[in-house]
This record gives sequence, structure tokens and C-alpha cells, in this order.
Amino acid sequence: MSVIPGYPRLLHGGDYNPDQWLDQPEIIAEDFRLMELAGCHTFSVGIFGWTAYEKTEGVYTFDWLDAIMDRMAAKGFKVILATPSGSKPAWMSRRHPEIRRVNRQGLREPHQGRHNHCWSSPVFREKVTAINSRLAERYHGHPALGMWHLSNEYSGECFCERCLGRWHEWLKSRYTTLDGLNRAWWTAFWSHTFTDWAEIDPRDGSLDGLALDWHRFLNWQVADFIEVEKAPLKRLSPEVPCAINTMGLFNGLDYARLSACVDLIGDDQYPSYDADGPGLHRHAASISFKQDLYRCMQPGRPFFIMESSPDLQQWKKPNRLKRPGLHRAETLQAIGHGADGMCYFQWRKGRGGMEKFHGAVVDHVGHEHTRVFQGVAEVGRLLDRLAPVAGAKIQAKVALVYDWEARWGFQTSDGPCTDGELYNQLVLDHYRPFWDRGIPVDVVNMDCGDLSNFQLLITPALWMLKPRYAARLRTFVENGGTLVGTFFTGICDPTNLCFLGGWPGNGLGEVFGVWNEETDCQNPGVTRPVRIEPAAGVYPKSEYTAERFFGLVHLRGAEALATYGADFFAGMPAVTSHSLGRGRAFYLAARMDDAFLASFYARLAGDLGLEGCLAEKPAGVAAQRRDGPDASWLFAQNFTPRPQTLRFHETGWTRVDAEAAPAGECVTLPPFGSEVWTRPRD
Amino acid sequence: MSVIPGYPRLLHGGDYNPDQWLDQPEIIAEDFRLMELAGCHTFSVGIFGWTAYEKTEGVYTFDWLDAIMDRMAAKGFKVILATPSGSKPAWMSRRHPEIRRVNRQGLREPHQGRHNHCWSSPVFREKVTAINSRLAERYHGHPALGMWHLSNEYSGECFCERCLGRWHEWLKSRYTTLDGLNRAWWTAFWSHTFTDWAEIDPRDGSLDGLALDWHRFLNWQVADFIEVEKAPLKRLSPEVPCAINTMGLFNGLDYARLSACVDLIGDDQYPSYDADGPGLHRHAASISFKQDLYRCMQPGRPFFIMESSPDLQQWKKPNRLKRPGLHRAETLQAIGHGADGMCYFQWRKGRGGMEKFHGAVVDHVGHEHTRVFQGVAEVGRLLDRLAPVAGAKIQAKVALVYDWEARWGFQTSDGPCTDGELYNQLVLDHYRPFWDRGIPVDVVNMDCGDLSNFQLLITPALWMLKPRYAARLRTFVENGGTLVGTFFTGICDPTNLCFLGGWPGNGLGEVFGVWNEETDCQNPGVTRPVRIEPAAGVYPKSEYTAERFFGLVHLRGAEALATYGADFFAGMPAVTSHSLGRGRAFYLAARMDDAFLASFYARLAGDLGLEGCLAEKPAGVAAQRRDGPDASWLFAQNFTPRPQTLRFHETGWTRVDAEAAPAGECVTLPPFGSEVWTRPRD
Amino acid sequence: MSVIPGYPRLLHGGDYNPDQWLDQPEIIAEDFRLMELAGCHTFSVGIFGWTAYEKTEGVYTFDWLDAIMDRMAAKGFKVILATPSGSKPAWMSRRHPEIRRVNRQGLREPHQGRHNHCWSSPVFREKVTAINSRLAERYHGHPALGMWHLSNEYSGECFCERCLGRWHEWLKSRYTTLDGLNRAWWTAFWSHTFTDWAEIDPRDGSLDGLALDWHRFLNWQVADFIEVEKAPLKRLSPEVPCAINTMGLFNGLDYARLSACVDLIGDDQYPSYDADGPGLHRHAASISFKQDLYRCMQPGRPFFIMESSPDLQQWKKPNRLKRPGLHRAETLQAIGHGADGMCYFQWRKGRGGMEKFHGAVVDHVGHEHTRVFQGVAEVGRLLDRLAPVAGAKIQAKVALVYDWEARWGFQTSDGPCTDGELYNQLVLDHYRPFWDRGIPVDVVNMDCGDLSNFQLLITPALWMLKPRYAARLRTFVENGGTLVGTFFTGICDPTNLCFLGGWPGNGLGEVFGVWNEETDCQNPGVTRPVRIEPAAGVYPKSEYTAERFFGLVHLRGAEALATYGADFFAGMPAVTSHSLGRGRAFYLAARMDDAFLASFYARLAGDLGLEGCLAEKPAGVAAQRRDGPDASWLFAQNFTPRPQTLRFHETGWTRVDAEAAPAGECVTLPPFGSEVWTRPRD
Repeated sequence: MSVIPGYPRLLHGGDYNPDQWLDQPEIIAEDFRLMELAGCHTFSVGIFGWTAYEKTEGVYTFDWLDAIMDRMAAKGFKVILATPSGSKPAWMSRRHPEIRRVNRQGLREPHQGRHNHCWSSPVFREKVTAINSRLAERYHGHPALGMWHLSNEYSGECFCERCLGRWHEWLKSRYTTLDGLNRAWWTAFWSHTFTDWAEIDPRDGSLDGLALDWHRFLNWQVADFIEVEKAPLKRLSPEVPCAINTMGLFNGLDYARLSACVDLIGDDQYPSYDADGPGLHRHAASISFKQDLYRCMQPGRPFFIMESSPDLQQWKKPNRLKRPGLHRAETLQAIGHGADGMCYFQWRKGRGGMEKFHGAVVDHVGHEHTRVFQGVAEVGRLLDRLAPVAGAKIQAKVALVYDWEARWGFQTSDGPCTDGELYNQLVLDHYRPFWDRGIPVDVVNMDCGDLSNFQLLITPALWMLKPRYAARLRTFVENGGTLVGTFFTGICDPTNLCFLGGWPGNGLGEVFGVWNEETDCQNPGVTRPVRIEPAAGVYPKSEYTAERFFGLVHLRGAEALATYGADFFAGMPAVTSHSLGRGRAFYLAARMDDAFLASFYARLAGDLGLEGCLAEKPAGVAAQRRDGPDASWLFAQNFTPRPQTLRFHETGWTRVDAEAAPAGECVTLPPFGSEVWTRPRD
Repeated sequence: MSVIPGYPRLLHGGDYNPDQWLDQPEIIAEDFRLMELAGCHTFSVGIFGWTAYEKTEGVYTFDWLDAIMDRMAAKGFKVILATPSGSKPAWMSRRHPEIRRVNRQGLREPHQGRHNHCWSSPVFREKVTAINSRLAERYHGHPALGMWHLSNEYSGECFCERCLGRWHEWLKSRYTTLDGLNRAWWTAFWSHTFTDWAEIDPRDGSLDGLALDWHRFLNWQVADFIEVEKAPLKRLSPEVPCAINTMGLFNGLDYARLSACVDLIGDDQYPSYDADGPGLHRHAASISFKQDLYRCMQPGRPFFIMESSPDLQQWKKPNRLKRPGLHRAETLQAIGHGADGMCYFQWRKGRGGMEKFHGAVVDHVGHEHTRVFQGVAEVGRLLDRLAPVAGAKIQAKVALVYDWEARWGFQTSDGPCTDGELYNQLVLDHYRPFWDRGIPVDVVNMDCGDLSNFQLLITPALWMLKPRYAARLRTFVENGGTLVGTFFTGICDPTNLCFLGGWPGNGLGEVFGVWNEETDCQNPGVTRPVRIEPAAGVYPKSEYTAERFFGLVHLRGAEALATYGADFFAGMPAVTSHSLGRGRAFYLAARMDDAFLASFYARLAGDLGLEGCLAEKPAGVAAQRRDGPDASWLFAQNFTPRPQTLRFHETGWTRVDAEAAPAGECVTLPPFGSEVWTRPRD
Repeated sequence: MSVIPGYPRLLHGGDYNPDQWLDQPEIIAEDFRLMELAGCHTFSVGIFGWTAYEKTEGVYTFDWLDAIMDRMAAKGFKVILATPSGSKPAWMSRRHPEIRRVNRQGLREPHQGRHNHCWSSPVFREKVTAINSRLAERYHGHPALGMWHLSNEYSGECFCERCLGRWHEWLKSRYTTLDGLNRAWWTAFWSHTFTDWAEIDPRDGSLDGLALDWHRFLNWQVADFIEVEKAPLKRLSPEVPCAINTMGLFNGLDYARLSACVDLIGDDQYPSYDADGPGLHRHAASISFKQDLYRCMQPGRPFFIMESSPDLQQWKKPNRLKRPGLHRAETLQAIGHGADGMCYFQWRKGRGGMEKFHGAVVDHVGHEHTRVFQGVAEVGRLLDRLAPVAGAKIQAKVALVYDWEARWGFQTSDGPCTDGELYNQLVLDHYRPFWDRGIPVDVVNMDCGDLSNFQLLITPALWMLKPRYAARLRTFVENGGTLVGTFFTGICDPTNLCFLGGWPGNGLGEVFGVWNEETDCQNPGVTRPVRIEPAAGVYPKSEYTAERFFGLVHLRGAEALATYGADFFAGMPAVTSHSLGRGRAFYLAARMDDAFLASFYARLAGDLGLEGCLAEKPAGVAAQRRDGPDASWLFAQNFTPRPQTLRFHETGWTRVDAEAAPAGECVTLPPFGSEVWTRPRD
């Protein structure tokens, strides 16, 4: 299944804003000449086009878009046509003040910025329906139309009376009665018992249950708005996929659950790949993680990169140029992890506005003789050769649980640690060992319906347990699965009420065979030694290090694989193993260092027969494999400043971007080099 | 005199919130079982109970509290019954918006948090009177009632029209005429002369006199509100003490002066005792200082710790577990400094809300088999044995002046140094030398009526001189007292007007025999050498260090004991001595280092015959002595990670918590160990 | 031409606030005694005097000022009489709320602070006109009146409906049509196309063109307000100069362009001269730069220092005492750079208010026997001897371009680097090499009418090119001038629209003979080696360092003088030279280090025959020369903690402040010492 139905290519193109250049037709003509030179053929158009369509309320002009669409069709290009709700016209803000948000202080915002309309305003919804209907009516059958791009990077909150009213309605539908809500939020705390729905102000930070539900409500607001956006599009063009573009691990929306509302997700990806920085490959692993997360959001459907930069951004500190080779590596990394397209923000730099210095395929200089343009064109040629990859699969036997609701539960709790990035870091700790070995991983949330395909399930810092999830984990283990959990797991239920009776709660303590009485939280960088016990078998080192978080655990059936070597909890278990049914459950009571996790998962991989996609893969190199019906592809990216040599499992892999003989057993990638090989399926 | 009349025990218990568990009677039953196991018997109840009493406006329910009170009485426990004004019901915020505060921006706050009602609202005062009356009527004769707990940690400010009106009335009563106020605040500055009381906005930061008076006004608002709270309680139960709980050195209220409004003060104490940190014993000294301050607030009356944590808090960064032994040490330190009770926030962790992870006697796990519970139970047993300590006295010959108004005067001045914690640090500099030697110190403010009991009076950075205080200091010295002052002393009068004619002003320069022309303020860590002069006598070192603040002083009768050894003021006096009448006045022109202060005060202690409560006391160990009519007690806490050996002045001291033979001359405390001994009075 | 017409002295005096002491006439009497002792004779009076004149609306009192003016006249002193608009009376804020500003949140401010009236309020303008008229009527012929001091340090912004309306009017007059504005601001970006002037909210940060114009509008608001202030003064006293006081490089106003509205500029100068700090002489160079900038603002007219501190300020962190000698050095530095007066804030410290601890000639102690007073008196004696300097000129052959509009254009752009101080730093890089050699520099903006007097023109980071400026630079070079430019030059037009076709844009690329394709921006401290090419000739070193910003440049006629020695752009030109007509244009593609710039400009100075005012001048010493019709003066300040020896070009220089024989060839300045010599013109 290709991203755009009937268009079996890896998407390559980007955000195109001809509406900024309507008075310079020669620039637009030049765009179409350059598009072909760059190997770009898929363009998001009209994202901020509202005033270009409707400069006067109710008077629509589509001539310019007609011309663009026709030209695209003539070239055989595809358009991802945007609904323009991301940036409302100034006349609308002036004539209909209700569409502007009310901020946290209770003040109506001035007209400014973008992405800041009130979610609930009937006027705004009516205007969106009108403009979306016009677009759908005019272009639903246009040969260039490949996809609908719903608005842009939805986000934010509004505190107007109408939004607060919807919040109260939403709560009513969730809890039915105030008694139910009062119990779920533990409102007796600080005398917060509510006696009328209207009393519930989302700005009250006293109740973590409230704060958590406000996150959910905002997600619902967006989902509800998406339905408004989609209705006219789906009515006239049911076969054209509707996509949203997302912001990676953005905390404000649960993209995994939101993805149910749309046909496709295109993520906006802006890694800070600093070739000189020592953290480059760690950062690369986090990007791979994010891609695996997005790959798994809509099982059976493709995903792609909707935005990326072929060069620097304008908003980073500092705004480094993208080093030679890194754009190609970033592209192959995305495709290797399952993306079926790599598009850019932006095709051409505008002359003014906040993003005039954001990287683009076409620079202000205007011609193709730039370093960046040539790099894009090279990628374009490679992507053309990779067209058969579209739809090829990745098979993972390892699942890592990452759940936005667990993250929100953790973050909205006051204590044990309010570091906003911590949940992500704790999950990434358990992703890197697999990335380092080239072993594919699915990243799923607690809604993942079927765990039986996995041999190994890892639930780092799974703060919240949704109903029945603990039981499902138990079944998974009893049926032979291997489960790995950590401190900060099974603390709260879905309304952030603490489980009573000891942690991990809700029955999970019996799965792990431990009681985690307390967890000592120290500053970053504070470490304690951890010693390997005989029960753990042979480890490369006899002592490892735990950092910052130290759970104090009592064995309740498990055995200790490692114990603390210092502090008042010296001798207590730091890592445990528990056999249950046909499986095993491991508990890591402390934040173990990378060295331990590498050893630990290496042993597990050996035990479970989990194999990386390369026979030998040096550290700092990413590798992925995708399998199509007739062929397989191997991708590798060298995120180090040194040449690195890889060894294949088998011979016969041929470089895709060269008419070359198949590679031998080993190949060497130059610093920051990246490559993709293919091989017929046996 | 015991804290609760007729209840001659050291209080032990804490905040108890059965209103959070009313639908789980088995939890409440378990509480009563656990209370006895923990040796807890005094519980603050109902602090946030308003909606549990009055869920519907005007409809009261006290059944649940009846049951709790009766159960407490049956056990022989005492209840510190709270008025619930600390957290207003949401229905009240909705129906009577005036009770919500107006913030600094002029916007009415949403319903949120706690401790945020308008101080002036007649509606709120009426509601408080009503609920307090109901409580007093129902429980004034109840055998469990031991004390009234007025609201909770009063704080904050409101800028509504009514509060501003009261501010203007308060100013009128303070200054009578606008001319008087204009003079007192030096309003000709920046053309601020006021011609109508209504013009005076407290948000104007231009006038430091205004800023200082706003502090005083807020203190008055709270005092005035306390009268409203107390009225119904005192009417029906005049013999039951009314207490407030306070926040140590909180800048927002002058607790020393506020204490006149109530019968008792219970401080909320949350030290950050990090056993691994190098600053542990300095921090311990600051806690001792705070306790000496509270002990002296209401002479002749007991005080106690109303809140503390048996474990971590949830709001610190990081939230470290409380190390073994530290809770016992913290308890004995408080009792040693005169506290007659040690209560906790909180008895049991709630399942939700901001404080669900705050330390408690009873954890979410629910049983008594936790490290923390066992530590509390051990303390409970010890406190039972210490019951006779209640009311025992501490005799100090040294007084240290700490005055909230002086602190406010210093902090509201723009320049010389706006570091908000500096005043506290400068006073603590002069407390530590006595703490280090186990010499008792009274901490008093400028209202302290009788100085004649003291041999040594220290006034560090006494920025403001209240009327006649300089004259009282002169008399103190002339009568044979020893006075120690420093730079930043005698700068301003009570409205923060600078004294003219040279500093220290208001006649104090003649007491010290110096003129402090200027004071050089440098960054923290900048030092200058200071050399001991022959006139100072023998010192352990010939050169010490001054840091950050360097006063440039001219002798006007005094002699130099030490002089600067560098910078353009080399050779000028850094420390001076002045004989006046039968006494002496020392002036420390610079912020001298700990080594100098230790030497300086050691000499003074020798001269004045001031003796510590131990014959030998290693650094980092705190020691206190209390004397009752029949017996004395010695307390010691080892705030170091090493064993420490102490030597008594005399033999015959017996450990309180063991049936042991009297100790010999010396005893050794383990790392972080603490102990208390008793001995009949000779 | 002297600062005050007919008063041929260097001004010495300061802000004098007798209105704070009207009830203490003995203090005022003492002031007049002390003024003579201090050698002070020019006083700014009435800056915050409004309520002292008009305590009741419409009722005026000038008796006290009459007395002061007469006393001043009797002494032969001059008064810089202020209009009092800097701080509005509280009664006015109360009776006419419209005069208070509306803040960025849209809320009307309370009465507070100073300098915060609405710029547009007709009521306020009427009140200002009334009070200014009264002052002019009463004092226009008074013998003490020397100058008008318009308000005080104008600044800030107001968002009331009236100010927004004026903003829209201003935009209309600037752009005529919305189409013009939409094009100039590139409003198609994020659908910002405006269809009504009323839609344009200045708080919208999306459009950098808007942000830039808001700066210009604020400048216009002040200029417009100045006209209101001046009208009554100019009507009655056209011959008395109207001055404003300014805040150095304050970002909020374009003082260079604002200076056209007034007769004179007096800058408020508060260097942080830390004698112990390693950055002292760099900071001194930046102060010299600022003075050269102010000297050139109003060609042919004098400027002076309106405020400075004879001691510390109260608002610095920390508030260090001013070291001995530094005040004299600061004074001679200012005079040396062209200032014809050195006045203080403040004459006497007030007893209350925010500035009671700001340095003053007269301390709270009240007498003259202070270190600071004596230092001022010494400076007073020296300035008296320097009276003939008034009006003496400085001849510079080097011009450095510093333009507030270019700075605003740079800062309002999102990317490449939003560091607010960067533009200033990049310009200062090119000032220090001349300061280090004692070569005079004019600091001018793009409006500077005649470039033909300069041999060398330097345009660091000249982001914006105003219309025809590139052509003027071309002409300058073609006619034999030497031009030096850098990366970040010629990027945008005056509405911040990026130039198309390659940078430096607007034809400037052909002047420099280069195309700057990209610029790599790294963190501060990141460096790359730069190697000198043979074409550059002999340099002291073969390799220098570039830091943080690295332009990637292609030669388009220029030749490379230096090339990068590392990174992916190794070998590309870092410094280029281009011969054009009879001149040369150099392009520095990277931020070169001080060592390179010293070498580079040393060569240029040699080629162009630019000579310093001393034959030998050690590093860290500042030197200036002024030439009058009959005599010349040489000033030198040693900003180092070591003695430094200077060598004159010729003999015959005589110290001004001593009846001494002429100096020989060499003289030595003590640490932080400063001196001035004179010599008849040959």
C-alpha cells in the first residue's frame, strides 16, 4: 500500500507556498523547472492559504490554485492539498472576536501568530466547513490531488467560556456523576469536592487527576475538530486519504490515540544532528525510536515524513549548517524505519516572516547551484530508485511500551520527579541497546491489541496501568513471554490514583515477584554501584552503576540478579528475575547504566534468539531492514566521524544507487556516510 | 506548662484526613490500630474539611467528625481541631466571586489551589464565622479537643478594591495625614507626592517605604482575620488554646509579631537533611537557629513542631529518602531547642492530589512494616519516655537580634544588595559560633522588653533601628553589657528613611565609636585579607578573611582590633572595639569568615564566662540542655558521617531510651546518631 | 561653540532635587556651600518636580524654584531646567486614567514608577503643554537658565486603543495602501494578509517587518511627543537649547535619528568599571565607542555627559565602590572623545525611594569630608583648567557604520542568531583595533551624507541596506576609498525583505566581488583555523582563528587573502580583497579573532597613513586628541593595574592640572591613572 493510493513512489517534495509569489510569475515558472531538477514531485500546498482564497469574507478566489494544480498534474506531480485552518485571516479575528483564544489569564488574545483559533467556536467551525467544502468541491476529482493535509501541527488550549463549557460536558460524559469525578480525582484533598460541573476550572493545579484529564480533553478537542475538518472532504472525495502532520514526541497531544481519526500520519522531523557533537549517535537513536513509534501507530498503513529540513532551521540555538552527508543519512534512516516518503519544509525560502531563514530546497539566491539543492537532488535520485520499497515491512519480535497517557500521569504528579523529559529518557534507555545491535523494535502503547507476536515486552517506567493491562502482562508472561519492567511502574490507575497495597500495583507485583517499598530520587549524576549476583550468570563486568533513581525492593518470589553495593540499601536487590508460568519477568529497581543494559539485553537476545539485521555493526551506526514481497532492503547510516565497517549476514546485497556488482561480506561507510542495499528474497 | 493544658506529654501525631477516606471505613479502622503502634496520639483534623462539613451552602454535616472525635477520646488521644478556612469550597467561589483574590495584574483568580481567599471579603468572613461557630458549639466540651488549629499557613495578598480600600484605611490610621505619609515615604522622589489616599497603589515599586508598609499591612490583614477566626472559638472554649502553624523564616509574615494574636505557635519544619551533602551541619545550625527564634517568640509559653515529614517531601529537587537516623535526630534537635511536640504532615498518604507523594507515617502500601513507620514508632517510644521534659527551660545569656521588619527594610531597599536571603545569612553567621560550642542563644527582635538578663547582645546587619532602640543599646552597654554589631547596621529608620549624619545612625555610631563611610559590595566569593592588630590580644591566626562586603570605617573613639590587608582600603579598620561605661561595643565592618568569628566569640565567651552544655563537643554535633524543676536533659545530634565522641561536664547522665547505667565522662555517637540523657538536678 | 551658549566652560554639576528637601532649608543652604567646594556649577533641576509645581490640578507653585534659580544666578551657576513629564502626578493618574499605559496583555497599568505615560493621550499632552508653558513663561529670561532638559530618558510603549490607532495612521502614511504594506511585510506568510488597517496588532511576532516598523513607530511617537514638549519652550526662549538625555546603546530608540528633533544630546553613562576585572579595557573601549557615536550624531554641535555616577550605582550586581582614580579617568575619557561636560546623577542622595543608594556627590553623612566628594572636587578643578577645550575638534579619517535600523532589522529576524547584543559586539570587534592604536574613528549611520572625507569605511554586519546605500558604497570605493565588510551584510532591505540573487545583496556582491552562499552559526567559543594566503602579504602569524560565524563564500572577482583550515569548508575563502576603480573592498566572511583584526587593520593603517595620537601607546591605555584653534590637548587613561609608559609624537606637551614644565618624550601613568596635556598649535 503506497502513501498516495495509486502513486507507488516514495514521496519526495515539500511545503510549497506559491501564494507568497503570485505577483512574480517568473519565480513560479522557475519553481517548476527546479522541481524536476531536484527530483521532487509531491507538494503540500495551501497550508497558510486562507487569505489567498478568501481575502474578503465569503468571496472566494481559486484561480491561482487552479493554475498550480494544473501545472502539477501536467508534470505528473501530486499535491497534498491543505485545509487552511492553521492560520486564520485577520479579518476573521476582527469581525468575529470569538474565534480568538482566551489565554490562561482569562484574556482574549490579540490577532497574532498561527495555530491559535478557539477549538469550540461555532463561527470558526462554520468558516472551516465553508472553505473546506469549496476546496473539496473544486479539486476532489483533480488528477493532481493526492492527499488532504488537515490544517497544520494542531496544538494549544483555549479558556473561553465555550471551551470551559465543553470541558464540563466532556467530564460529564466521562464520569456521569460528580460523585464519580470526585472519587476519581480524590477531590476531598484540599476540600476540592465539586458540587456543580461549572465549578471545575482546568487551571487548578491542585489535583493531578484534573491535570491529566485536561490533557485528554485537549486531545478530544482536536479529534472533534478533525471531524469537522474531514466531513466535507470525505463527502466528496472518500478515497483521498486525510493526513495530519505531527510533532514527534510533542507532549501536548497523544498522537498515537489521535491517529485513529485520520487515514495517515506525516511526522515533522527536525533532528539536531550536530556532526561535531559527542551525542550524535544517541540523538540518532532517539530519532529512530520516534520513527518506530510512528511506524506502529497505524498498523498496516504507511507513514511518512511530512516535514524535514534539507538544511538548518532558523529557530535552533545555534543554527548550524547541515553537514554534507547528513541529509542523505537522515533520509535513509527514515525510510529504513518504515517511512515511505521524505518531504521538506520548505521548497523555497520566503523573503519575509519568521521562517524566511528556515532551510529550503531553493535558497534566496534562486538557482540550483547551491550545496543544499544538489544534496536534495541526489536524495531525489536515490528515492526514485527506492520506489519498490513502498509498503515493505519490518518484523519485530521486541515491543517497547511508550504511552502518552502514562507520560502525562507521570508528569502531572507532583513528585517523585517533575523533570518533563524524564519519561522519554527512561524509555529511550531501553531502546538504545536494540538500536545498537540493529534489532528491530515495535514501539506500542497499552492499547496494542495483540501481544502474542512478541517474544520480549519492555515497559519502562510504566507509571499508569490502564484497566486489565496488568492482567494482560501476566498472561503474556505465563504464556512464555519475557517481560522487563522498572521502578516507577504500576504506581497509578488511569485517573492517577495511587494503587494501594504496594507497588508495582494492580497485581503487577506478583508478576514481577517484588514489592518496591520506596524509591530514592537523587540529582542527575549521583550513582551507586550495583553488583552482579551468581544467579545472573556470567556478565562482562562484575559491577555496574545505577544513577539517580534507586528503588528499594523486597523479594516476593523473585530472585536477585544484582544488588546495590553501597548506601543504606546496600545488599538490597537492584535487578530481579521471576519465573512465572512459561515465561519470565525482570524488574530493574534502579536506573541502570548503558553498560549494564547492553549486557543485560545481549543475554536476553541470545536466550531468545533475537538477531540484528547485520552480522557485525559497529557502535554509532544505525541499521534497518525492510522486506517486500520480492526483495529486501538493508539501510545503514554511520553517525560517527570515522569510517565504519559492516558485515552482512549473507552475500548478494547490491547498492541501490549505483550500477554496481553486489557487495561482498563487508562494506565500509565513510564518516557520516549512509547506504542502502537490496537483495531478492530467497 | 504543657502544650495542651492538662495533657502533660510531648505531642506526637500529625495531620489526619479521614475525610479523604469516608467511603472506606476499613481504612479508618486500620488508622486507629496503626496510631497506637506508631506511638502517635495527637492529630490535627479537618484542616481541609470544609466541603466535608458543608457540601451544600448552609447545610452542615458533622457525623463523620463526631465519630472521629469519639474514637480519639476513647483512645485517650487529643485532637487539634482545625478551622477549615485554608481551602474554600468551590461552590463558594462560584456563588460569591468576591471571595477569590484579585492578583497583581488586577484579574480575579479562578477557583484553584488553597490559601487564597480575599482577606477582606465580608462574605468570606461571615462564612468563616458560621463554620467556626458550628465547630465550637459542637465540640467545645468534647474530651478529645485539645487545641484549635486556625486555618493553615496563612499567606498571600489580594488586590481587590476592598483590600485596597483597607490598605488606605490602614495607612490613614498609621500616618493620620497625607503629609505625614509623604514625608515618611520620601514621596517627593519621582514626583510621587500623594494628594489622596486612593492614589496609593501597593504595586508601585518606586518607594521602598511603601513596599515596607505593604509587608506590615499584610501582617495586619492576617492578624485582623485571626480575630475573626478566633471570636466564636474563644466565646465557647476560652480555655482551649488557639494555635497557628507557621513556615519558619517565611518572608511574607512577621511571625514574631503575629504570635501576639494567638496562644500558641506550631512551626512547620522541613529541613533538607542530605546525609551525603557537605553542608549538612551548616543546615542543621540554621534549623537550630529557627527553633531558638520560635522558642523565644512567646516567652513563658511552649511551642512545638506542628508539621514535619517522617520521610521525604514531594516538592523538593530532588526528593531524597530520609536517611536512617535522621528523623530521630531531627526530633531530638527540636525537643532539645525547646519544642514540646513533634507532629507530622501527614499521617497517611492520600491516593490523589498534589501531596499524595509527600512523606507520611502510613504509606500507600497500608501496613506498618515499612522503614518509615518503624522509625516513627521508635521516636514515639522515646517521646513517651521524655514526657517530663514538657515545660523544661533553656537559660541563655546570649541574645541574637533577628527582626522581620529589619529584614523587610533591607530587602525592600534597592541596593546595596538585593539578595533576598542575605539578611538571614548574615544573622546565621553569628549564630553558628555558639551552636558550634553548644552555648544557648535566645533569638529576639527589637521589641524584646528586657535586655538586662543578657551578657552579650549581637545585632548583625540591623538595618533598621526602631525608635529608642539605639538608646536602649547604649544603656545596655553602659550597664556592662557586650554588644556586637556589623556593617549594614543603623542605616534606616522604621519607614526606611536613611539616617543622616553618618552610619551607624541614630546615635549608634557613638556607641560603637566608628563612622562607616562606605561599604564595598562585591560578588560572592570575593575576599580580602584581614590582619589581627596587637590590641586584639592573642588570636589563633594572625590573618583571617573577609568576604564580599567590606565596610570602610573611621575610628571615632574605638580602637582597631583588625585591619584590611589589601585593596585601596588596606590599613583601615575591619574590626573595632569601643569601651563605653561598664561595657564594650564591637563593630565588624566586613563580613568576616567563620574562622574569625569562631576565634572572636571564643575569646568573648571566655571573657564573659559563657559555657557550652558539653565539656567537649566535636564540630558538626548539635547539643542542647533543658532544665526542669527536678531534672535536666542533655540532647545531642551527630550531623556528620563519622562517629563523634562527646565529653560531659559531669558524670551521672543516663540515657533516656534505655534502661542503662549512667554514662561515664565520654560517649560516642554513631554517624547521624542522636541521643538524650537525663540527670536529677543537684 | 559651547554647550550652553555664552557659557564657555566644560559643564560640571548634576541632577539636583531640592524639591525633596523643601522642609529642610538648612540642607539647601549647605548644598550651595558644597557646590562651590566641589567645583560644580551646572545643575539639572525639576526633573521629577511636577507635584512640587502642581500639587493640585491647575494650581501652580513656583516659589521654591524661584528661590533656587535666583540662588544659582547669584553664584553664577547654570540650570538645565527640566520639563517634568518623566513622572506624572498620582492625582493625574487617578483623575485621567487614560494617561496610564496599557501593557502588552491589554491591561491598563496602575499608577507606578515613572516614564510610563501614554504617548498619545490628549489629556497628558495638554497637561504637559500647560506646565511647560508655565515654566517657559516664568524662567525664559532668567539669567540662570542655561538649557531645557526635556523630560527624562524617554522609553517604552503603550497598547491603548489610541496608540494603536496612531500606529495604524502611521502605517498608512508610510505605506499608503494595504497592498503596499502587505508586500513590504510579506504578509502572505502564515496568511497574514491584512484587509483593514485596524487588523494590524503590533503584538504579532510572526512578521519581522511588522516588528521592525513597531520600533520605528515608537521612535516616531517619541519624536512627536518631543514636538509637543518643545513648542512652548521654543516660543518663548528660542535661543535656549533643548536637550534630551539618552541611555547609550539602548535598543528601544534610534537616538541617532531622534537627535534631529533636539538641539543637544546629553548621554547618561554608567560604565561598570571594575578595576579588578580582566575585561576592564575591553569595556573601556566600548565606552569610547559609545562616545564617538554620540560625538558624531549632531555634526558641528557639542555633546556632553548628562548623567554619570561619581561613585557606585544602586542597581548593579554587585554594587562595587568606584576605585580611586577611575572617576577621573572616566571624566577625561569622555572629554577626550569630545564631550564638553561631565554631570552627575546625583548631587545629593535622598533619604528614601529607589535611588537613595545611588552614588552622589553629597552622601547621607552630609559633609564634604568623604572620599567621593574629594574626588569630584579634584575633577572640578581639572575641568576648570580645561575650559578652553570646549568646542575643540577631533578629525577622523576612519568611519565605522553603526545603524540602529540595521540592528533592529537583525534582531527582529528569527535566525540566523537572535542574541540581542550580537550586533553591538560585531561592530565593536572593528572598533577596538583603532582604540588600541589611538586612531580616531567617527561612528556614523547610513544617513551620513558625505563619505568623501573618509579614507576607510567599515560596515560590520550591515544587515540592512537602505535605498541607494550600496550604490554609495560602490562610489566610495571607485573613488579610491577602502571598504571593509563582513558576513551578515546586505541581507535585507529596509522592511527586512531578504534580497534575492545572492548575498551581499542589492549590488554589493559586485563591490566585494564575492557570493556568500551560506553562513554556519555555531555556539560561542567554537573556532576554526584560518590560514593567511600569499596574496595577503606578510602577516605576523600564518594562522589565525575565526569564531562562531563562518561564511561560505565564492569568489566573484575578489581574491582570497585567507582561507579556512578545517571543517567541510576548508580551503574556502575567509577573507577576500577586491580592487574596484581606485579603491579596494575587503570582505571578512567569518568572525575573525582580535589578533587577526589587529594585524589586518595595522596593515591598512600603514597603507593608508592613518596615525595614532601617540607614538607609542601600550595596550589597555586609551588616548584621544582634540584640536582647538590655538591649542591641542592629549588625553590618556590607563585602564590597567600596572604603570604604563607612553611616548609622544613630539615634545612640548604640558600637563594641564599642574604648573609643570612640559613633559619629555615619554611619560608614565600609574595604575588606573589618567592625564591630559596641552600644546599650542604649531
